[in-house]
Amino acid sequence: MPNKTEEEKRAIQEAKLLKKKAVVDERIAKATIERGVSILLTGNGKGKSSSAFGTMARALGHGRKCAVVQFIKGRTETGEQKFFGALPDVEFHVMGHGFTWETRNPELEQKAAEQAWELAKGLLANPEVDFVLLDEVTYMYKYGYLQVEDLLAALESRPKHQNVMMTGRTAPRALLDSVDTHSKIANERHAFASGVKAQEGIEW
Amino acid sequence: MPNKTEEEKRAIQEAKLLKKKAVVDERIAKATIERGVSILLTGNGKGKSSSAFGTMARALGHGRKCAVVQFIKGRTETGEQKFFGALPDVEFHVMGHGFTWETRNPELEQKAAEQAWELAKGLLANPEVDFVLLDEVTYMYKYGYLQVEDLLAALESRPKHQNVMMTGRTAPRALLDSVDTHSKIANERHAFASGVKAQEGIEW
Repeated sequence: MPNKTEEEKRAIQEAKLLKKKAVVDERIAKATIERGVSILLTGNGKGKSSSAFGTMARALGHGRKCAVVQFIKGRTETGEQKFFGALPDVEFHVMGHGFTWETRNPELEQKAAEQAWELAKGLLANPEVDFVLLDEVTYMYKYGYLQVEDLLAALESRPKHQNVMMTGRTAPRALLDSVDTHSKIANERHAFASGVKAQEGIEW
Repeated sequence: MPNKTEEEKRAIQEAKLLKKKAVVDERIAKATIERGVSILLTGNGKGKSSSAFGTMARALGHGRKCAVVQFIKGRTETGEQKFFGALPDVEFHVMGHGFTWETRNPELEQKAAEQAWELAKGLLANPEVDFVLLDEVTYMYKYGYLQVEDLLAALESRPKHQNVMMTGRTAPRALLDSVDTHSKIANERHAFASGVKAQEGIEW
């Protein structure tokens, strides 16, 4: 068989694209429900919290009111807190006991988790908040500090337009089954493994 | 065998955590190289561009100078452009021909890709830019508009402290092999498939 000419190749590519377009068009025509969504980001790869913060920036660009509850207190001054915490349209709460390997204290962690959840519950019931980010919330279920049923109930009864994002390495089955969107971020490679030191502006 | 008491369970958990801590401590001690990193986000899941924008917000929180080149022009007014484009510390370029299914024009797309790359190359050579985001750049290699070797050379010779993030569904092998960090975002579920309409503040 003779080789295809450039023109023939292009025609085949065009036909493929048109076929793809038909599939996409059909899906778009079917997607007519207008409401807020729940989005969960899990996995061991870099990018879960930053993806949620990037989506929040998008919401802010469209004038939405946003709120963040960070369930684990890490470093003192994170870039996300310095940046978003200063904005009038963002309510930014860093909760958690300030967990470190050296100062583990399950009682204080339990109490901090409950306080963070009280805050989160209020935000999930507030129609003035358009976008809620519950950062690293899934660890609370893993460690048994909070009950996932309470989260599911709050998500279910939240204002219809409200978008919610949640992050954490792993999540309980019930949460995985209930969210609208779930992306799992796999670590294919990390600079840290090649000896590059973690740095502000990237890791925090 | 008798069941473990709560105290015994806690002691086992503590021992596990201490073991984990030793591994983490050793890795931290080994990661001593201080330099900018190249980060690639691929995969079919939601969250690639938003993760890059969230990391950029983190960099901005620490006072870094940032620059964005979007290689594909999508909607007219995206939230990320409205939000970040207004900031003094961000240089924001939306490039690309404005690809739509209806108005495909390979010649114009080729030209737009080259113009975007000229801009990107300048940023990757500029020591005053701390963070460069090349959004959806990998499609340029997939469609053959740009050569990945040019990107690799520019990444290799860029200022040592500069962090670079790149996004796109798939990436050429040479790029996958060269970046410091690579996360792959898998689509586990998407609201769109359940009939929920794409919305501003989330998808754009």
